[in-house]
Amino acid sequence: MKSIEVIDGKVALHEAEMPLVGPYDILIKVKSTAVNRADLMQKKGLYPPPPGASEILGLECSGIVDAVGKKVTSRRVGDEVCALLAGGGYAEYVACPEFQAIPKPTNLNWEEASSLPEVYATCWLNLFIEGNLTNNNKVLFHAGASGIGTAGIQLCKAFNCESFVTAGNEEKIKYCMNLGASGGAVRGDKMFSEVQSWVPEGFDIILDPVGANYFEDNLKMLGLEGRLIIIGLMGGMEANINLGHLMMKRQRIIGSTIRARSEELKKIVMNELHEKVWPFIESNQIKPVIHEVLDISETEKAHQIMEDNQNIGKLVLSLG
Amino acid sequence: MKSIEVIDGKVALHEAEMPLVGPYDILIKVKSTAVNRADLMQKKGLYPPPPGASEILGLECSGIVDAVGKKVTSRRVGDEVCALLAGGGYAEYVACPEFQAIPKPTNLNWEEASSLPEVYATCWLNLFIEGNLTNNNKVLFHAGASGIGTAGIQLCKAFNCESFVTAGNEEKIKYCMNLGASGGAVRGDKMFSEVQSWVPEGFDIILDPVGANYFEDNLKMLGLEGRLIIIGLMGGMEANINLGHLMMKRQRIIGSTIRARSEELKKIVMNELHEKVWPFIESNQIKPVIHEVLDISETEKAHQIMEDNQNIGKLVLSLG
Repeated sequence: MKSIEVIDGKVALHEAEMPLVGPYDILIKVKSTAVNRADLMQKKGLYPPPPGASEILGLECSGIVDAVGKKVTSRRVGDEVCALLAGGGYAEYVACPEFQAIPKPTNLNWEEASSLPEVYATCWLNLFIEGNLTNNNKVLFHAGASGIGTAGIQLCKAFNCESFVTAGNEEKIKYCMNLGASGGAVRGDKMFSEVQSWVPEGFDIILDPVGANYFEDNLKMLGLEGRLIIIGLMGGMEANINLGHLMMKRQRIIGSTIRARSEELKKIVMNELHEKVWPFIESNQIKPVIHEVLDISETEKAHQIMEDNQNIGKLVLSLG
Repeated sequence: MKSIEVIDGKVALHEAEMPLVGPYDILIKVKSTAVNRADLMQKKGLYPPPPGASEILGLECSGIVDAVGKKVTSRRVGDEVCALLAGGGYAEYVACPEFQAIPKPTNLNWEEASSLPEVYATCWLNLFIEGNLTNNNKVLFHAGASGIGTAGIQLCKAFNCESFVTAGNEEKIKYCMNLGASGGAVRGDKMFSEVQSWVPEGFDIILDPVGANYFEDNLKMLGLEGRLIIIGLMGGMEANINLGHLMMKRQRIIGSTIRARSEELKKIVMNELHEKVWPFIESNQIKPVIHEVLDISETEKAHQIMEDNQNIGKLVLSLG
């Protein structure tokens, strides 16, 4: 089969072995996949796949079930699905545990459907399961115009919470406000004081892909019993912390990744997405946000767009 | 009524006004109260009582219900109770919301009963509610011979978890091991390497009253999805943190105090203690650990014993 492989830090199409399909796995003929920041890190050798996962890039896809393992009960050959993957999405075929695939929303095309699994699973896990998001909570998304941010804003709106964002430029802020964010601040010296002016009592949840550079300010922006959920380290790892503040405000700092989590947990997340989020998608209340669809042969170009922080929403790679 | 008051950083018996009893409150004639480290801090002006709480020291007591507010449904005059207090325990009478008092274990005397509420409520809240303690978890208690430590060790044993401690000297370690701890290390340079040798895969929960001085080592000792729960700052507030480690291990840092929590939450904690822990106490599987019972007039002496870290378990103040 064709797949994208990394050679000397660059990606290109190559021939690869077909994936092995275990007894609890399904084989998906991939129609479309999408880019995640983790792919850029993996390409640089900074984010090795978890044990047992494919070496091929790609954490999500849409496609058609092509074969099923002997013990598979929930999927059949011919099913149209979207799947959360531990790797291997940048390829003609990918295998994954059956419960990581859920039906493709009927109103979406393949490209749209492939843009959903990773960002909605990440948001669902972190906002609802780790962060215990509840009605009327106030949430801050850094990188509000990213795939995660644009998914998070829409989830907050759907579940009666208010969201606020930071982002790299005015165009991105505007986009986020149109999607449903109540406020947005452009990255820079005044960003955090602006953020604080909207929610002086502090946020209930901050979903943060930045890490060290924002850490102390994030904790200041967090309210009583607030949760700071760290899902990325674009701004470094080493930071200072004031434990007195953390204790008196009864705050939580939660380190979170989804890729290395158990199949058990991924099954829970995907089931909840299917039950609780897919209805909003199928009624067009939540929409995929796609910056651009490129052909899989243009993967390097898609990566460059993300490296340059040019995208609003997802970069999708179509397998045609 | 008589109560302990703080004048110029020292405590002594004085006359005070009787407490006000609200419609949802009960008035308790105090038989015995007990010392907590928070009392020492409050005495120094470093830990003001939360809004609405008594200015008098004392976070727990045992005693007899002397009067009930109009809306009280669960307690009657004459009931023998132990209570978790937001303040006011060092006095002949104290008022508190009815649900913060639960029946005194029938097999304990007043002094023993007064040693339970604060440490068991703190342990229950942090281990089970905040920390999600589950079967076979491994827990590290710093200050293992403290009231909290001696309660935590016994709770771990009762709920099929393994506990380990650190403490200031060999005598304390020995006491903790006799109570059920699987390992103990004396405070000092080699303490953390010793701790790590017992549980190389890392702890599920670390309950920490120390803060900054232990912070980086605590995070190193924490396993995958481990929870570091900070309940005190005896070793300072300012620390460094490696967010990469936190994220890849999916760890949580939880700042926690019980005193300023809602009555709602305290009601849940006290109900769970009554339902799930009191049976272990009444069957002598969990025992109060009391260093010394002193008369309330000897409060200053009791405080000095705790300041000097001389105590194993609780210091109790009897009102005779």
